[in-house]
Amino acid sequence: MAEGIDSLMYEFGAGKSAIRELFEKSMEFVQQGVTTDIWDFSIGNPTVPAPPEVSEAIEKVLASCSSFELHGYTENNGRLATREAIARDLNKRFGHGSHRYGAGDLMLTAGAAGAISATIAALTLPGESAIVLTPYFPEYRMYIQAWHCHCVEVPTTPKTFQPNINAIEAAIEPTTRMVIINTPNNPTGTIYRPEVLEQLADMLRQKEKDLGRVIYLLSDEPYREIVYDGHVNPWVPDYYEDTVVCYSYSKSLSLPGERAGYVLVPPSLTNHDHAYEALLGSQRAINTIQNSLMQRVLELCAGVAAPIKEYQRKRRIIYRGLSDIGYDVVRPDGAFYLWIRCLEEDERAFSEKAFEHGLLLVPSDDFGCDSYVRLSYCCDDDTLSGSLPAFQKLWDDYGSYLW
Amino acid sequence: MAEGIDSLMYEFGAGKSAIRELFEKSMEFVQQGVTTDIWDFSIGNPTVPAPPEVSEAIEKVLASCSSFELHGYTENNGRLATREAIARDLNKRFGHGSHRYGAGDLMLTAGAAGAISATIAALTLPGESAIVLTPYFPEYRMYIQAWHCHCVEVPTTPKTFQPNINAIEAAIEPTTRMVIINTPNNPTGTIYRPEVLEQLADMLRQKEKDLGRVIYLLSDEPYREIVYDGHVNPWVPDYYEDTVVCYSYSKSLSLPGERAGYVLVPPSLTNHDHAYEALLGSQRAINTIQNSLMQRVLELCAGVAAPIKEYQRKRRIIYRGLSDIGYDVVRPDGAFYLWIRCLEEDERAFSEKAFEHGLLLVPSDDFGCDSYVRLSYCCDDDTLSGSLPAFQKLWDDYGSYLW
Repeated sequence: MAEGIDSLMYEFGAGKSAIRELFEKSMEFVQQGVTTDIWDFSIGNPTVPAPPEVSEAIEKVLASCSSFELHGYTENNGRLATREAIARDLNKRFGHGSHRYGAGDLMLTAGAAGAISATIAALTLPGESAIVLTPYFPEYRMYIQAWHCHCVEVPTTPKTFQPNINAIEAAIEPTTRMVIINTPNNPTGTIYRPEVLEQLADMLRQKEKDLGRVIYLLSDEPYREIVYDGHVNPWVPDYYEDTVVCYSYSKSLSLPGERAGYVLVPPSLTNHDHAYEALLGSQRAINTIQNSLMQRVLELCAGVAAPIKEYQRKRRIIYRGLSDIGYDVVRPDGAFYLWIRCLEEDERAFSEKAFEHGLLLVPSDDFGCDSYVRLSYCCDDDTLSGSLPAFQKLWDDYGSYLW
Repeated sequence: MAEGIDSLMYEFGAGKSAIRELFEKSMEFVQQGVTTDIWDFSIGNPTVPAPPEVSEAIEKVLASCSSFELHGYTENNGRLATREAIARDLNKRFGHGSHRYGAGDLMLTAGAAGAISATIAALTLPGESAIVLTPYFPEYRMYIQAWHCHCVEVPTTPKTFQPNINAIEAAIEPTTRMVIINTPNNPTGTIYRPEVLEQLADMLRQKEKDLGRVIYLLSDEPYREIVYDGHVNPWVPDYYEDTVVCYSYSKSLSLPGERAGYVLVPPSLTNHDHAYEALLGSQRAINTIQNSLMQRVLELCAGVAAPIKEYQRKRRIIYRGLSDIGYDVVRPDGAFYLWIRCLEEDERAFSEKAFEHGLLLVPSDDFGCDSYVRLSYCCDDDTLSGSLPAFQKLWDDYGSYLW
């Protein structure tokens, strides 16, 4: 590495993710004037517009707030009124008995990513480890390693993609500080089942006792509201006391670029107040605070419903379309990704073959496992239905599953 | 420290800064119904409204962009069009000969704070050290320590508050990676003189040779545009090749809550491309990206002038007012802070005495030095002129300088 450069950060910046590689490939084609249709399913950047309540809220705050109120510094944990609005919404949906949340349990952050960064900075020490469940959102690895912690990959149960409790238990070491879960899941669309979460919680509680240390469950929930077929995503703090929830409105309100998220530190968390203060410290030291205009907007939009019907329609188009051709796809319970078993074992080779037909699908090695590709269906309906002939040709190239 | 909590982050969050303590004191008074007038000069949160071009730009992008364009993910280094607009503005004002800047030298960040965090993460290694010049913006210490680097304080020259080149030279060790400067300066309002920057650059170049390593000059420039009396803030990359500029529109466009800033990596920087990639890596790993709506706004507002006349008027009111009473104050060349020599040696005691008269002034120990207080004059004119009788009473309490 060049002198004066942090090699880890360089690797994060220069190391091409599969998603980025696909993007650049696609851009090159466009620049070279290649006429092949490109069906870009690479990234989770919703084309579904933000709900009308969001633009109404923006107009309202622009009209009613002074420049100082709109654009001035906010409290370091975010405006009180916004945190109160979010707490009210959470209590309405998830509050019961002693499980109620207040503004003092919430910190507004730059998206779920900022929330996760701040949480890992605050609640881990260098040399500790965090467990992720494959397949997993690949950025977790960076968020963990940036704080000099080890990222330990543990496979989920094959086919169901539910957490494998025995495998997680076997991976827990005296240095384990955190397990990161993500339900509904990116990339599989799986919702974790209540009984699996119960087992996970029981096992973690026992491990906390055995090891005499806190083990946090970081629940990354950007897709919490995007669920189908009457499924309900379990409310993780109900299962395990030492849960920290990281949330983003990126997907539920189609605002990924606005970096609007939060950390919830439930009252049940061991050393709640210390943990919250440490989060304030990492917010201050690494600057993960949410911008002020969006804080005003969220005060008005905390309870706005996600456009589930839109995504349900999109899921039907692509799930049925690929199933009918013969593809082995995981039926998503939530989120907006389709996890497709490759027609040959090597996911890179399959992704390249797909690209010859203009299909941009992210190979599963980026998510820590083999022989799948991820399709993001938060795009236009026309792209979804228009791509089906290309998927048919891809299938015809292989003739059937070759492994 | 409680088990499972990062003690450094806890300290950052729970350790009250003097500014925060003042705030809380003030809030308590208000809640207790204390009728004393409170003259709050504690924080740099401009009450001067954002220029009309900003609200026009917000309205324009809201009217002309789709939800996807407004709120979708942007490139990880920020939108190309915005980076190009900023590069054009920089070239217009500072470009000459080979000193020209392109979109590929810029990365859009969450304010200057995000820019500094990302830069320290990318360009230092744990165990290295960064030099700051007292008095200095106290958050630097956190940005440095968060990345397990040492924060080394070096005093500026007494009275002029210019960098003391001999003192900096003496403080440079084999582990020194960075010197952080800030002109116009918070808290003193000083602009660094060209000949001082030349000496600093010559010394750093020699040290780079002697030690065989890069020493970065991180130039934090949120007040670059706020200069008085025809002063021009020197363009630091013209003096020293290994400069990284961290900028924010917080102050020049009165947008502190929006977290709109950038890092400039000039083409002259040693290992420019590696450094830029490492910055992209830290942006990705710790999430310092600027929100998408503000990126659109900055594309239209990169060249908008700061409300200098407003601040010049405010400076006159408070600088003349305090000078006339007898206070020894540093005449600010730029920024919007007044650095006041305390009437007794102990700055905490003086700050408390000032508070008895309702005056909220930040004691200098927070900035790494003794016997001064900072007054932030980015507030209403009425607050400035209205506070003068209280300053007179405070003076009368002491009768004269007691040390």
